[in-house]
Amino acid sequence: MTPAKHTQHAYIRDGAEIYRNSFAIIRNEADLSRFSGHAEKVAVRIVHATGMVEIAPEIVMSANFADAARSALLKGAPILCDAQMVAHGVTRKRLPAGNEVICTLSDPSVPTLAHEMDTTRSAAALELWRPKQEGAVVAIGNAPTALFRLLEMLEEDGAPKPAAIIGVPVGFVGAAESKEALAAYGQVPYLIVKGRKGGSAIAAAAVNALASEAE
Amino acid sequence: MTPAKHTQHAYIRDGAEIYRNSFAIIRNEADLSRFSGHAEKVAVRIVHATGMVEIAPEIVMSANFADAARSALLKGAPILCDAQMVAHGVTRKRLPAGNEVICTLSDPSVPTLAHEMDTTRSAAALELWRPKQEGAVVAIGNAPTALFRLLEMLEEDGAPKPAAIIGVPVGFVGAAESKEALAAYGQVPYLIVKGRKGGSAIAAAAVNALASEAE
Repeated sequence: MTPAKHTQHAYIRDGAEIYRNSFAIIRNEADLSRFSGHAEKVAVRIVHATGMVEIAPEIVMSANFADAARSALLKGAPILCDAQMVAHGVTRKRLPAGNEVICTLSDPSVPTLAHEMDTTRSAAALELWRPKQEGAVVAIGNAPTALFRLLEMLEEDGAPKPAAIIGVPVGFVGAAESKEALAAYGQVPYLIVKGRKGGSAIAAAAVNALASEAE
Repeated sequence: MTPAKHTQHAYIRDGAEIYRNSFAIIRNEADLSRFSGHAEKVAVRIVHATGMVEIAPEIVMSANFADAARSALLKGAPILCDAQMVAHGVTRKRLPAGNEVICTLSDPSVPTLAHEMDTTRSAAALELWRPKQEGAVVAIGNAPTALFRLLEMLEEDGAPKPAAIIGVPVGFVGAAESKEALAAYGQVPYLIVKGRKGGSAIAAAAVNALASEAE
């Protein structure tokens, strides 16, 4: 009698096989015909991160987004994240040039900056991005105020231009509007998920898809 | 002429007001009538984290989940997370007893353990939970294999029982099945999101809702 064996759950224990099967299911079920090349891989990973094939129609990338972001990463561009969850979702070993992954939200100067600027900590933290912002890949997965602030910096302050902006903040207040504003700005290659949906997992998934040819 | 002002985006810059407005929208739009007390706050924060009122019907909590998890946190229970993204989504200042937030996935012993156990690193990492597992709050937001492995440990190995299990892995291979298995096990208070949806943000949101009376 080996009762322990009988209670074992049947599930796949090989990480590579789980990825392969997941991506095959996604490509079978989701309509990704609008995307090709690396943009398609980005869309697949976003669906993967959310468990939702129904998110595919809400993904919008400017025509040059995937090439611009991938090219920047290959050249060693830093990745500027609005939240620690985004930064910790980026798989370091996929990065092509030991790229820096930066989140300034926890910097000790940020609460004072936010008070002085009369805004959220997430928005104020972008002041610390400036020295790294030129040619960077931006990944905003949490705070609409961070994306709005980035647009203000670009439109009004002549702040350095990132190579590409992953703008996928989530939520009920400002998220949809901030993403529409990014698309309307249009002067930096961008990725958005329309509407309220978004999040750190989507932002990190996009970076991970762009970082490597390997799936 | 102050053209800069004209291009400013109109958005709420007060974090507390953003939270209040978000939660009001959620309570207005989502059907949360199945939940009360802290369970309702958990459901609100899950909707908030995903931007999806339509996820509410997929949230299932055992009758004693919210009380058991909250009571454990008040007593100082550690929070055991399957992914760094979950651990980094837990707001430390909300925790009622300086609770430890633990993710063992990056422990240097895990790759060897995974090889020896012929399973994923996410599942193998749970071996390192054992000394902390009794009475802990478990938050699995990424890997179905971690949730399946936890159930094996509880059912077959006589592993220490957590006080509550937040079981919300995401994806296309094993996620739905692992959550069904957790609900079927039924011997530890649990929270699941049925089906493929889940994720680190949902797991962290549940912990954050349970951690404090304050919204």
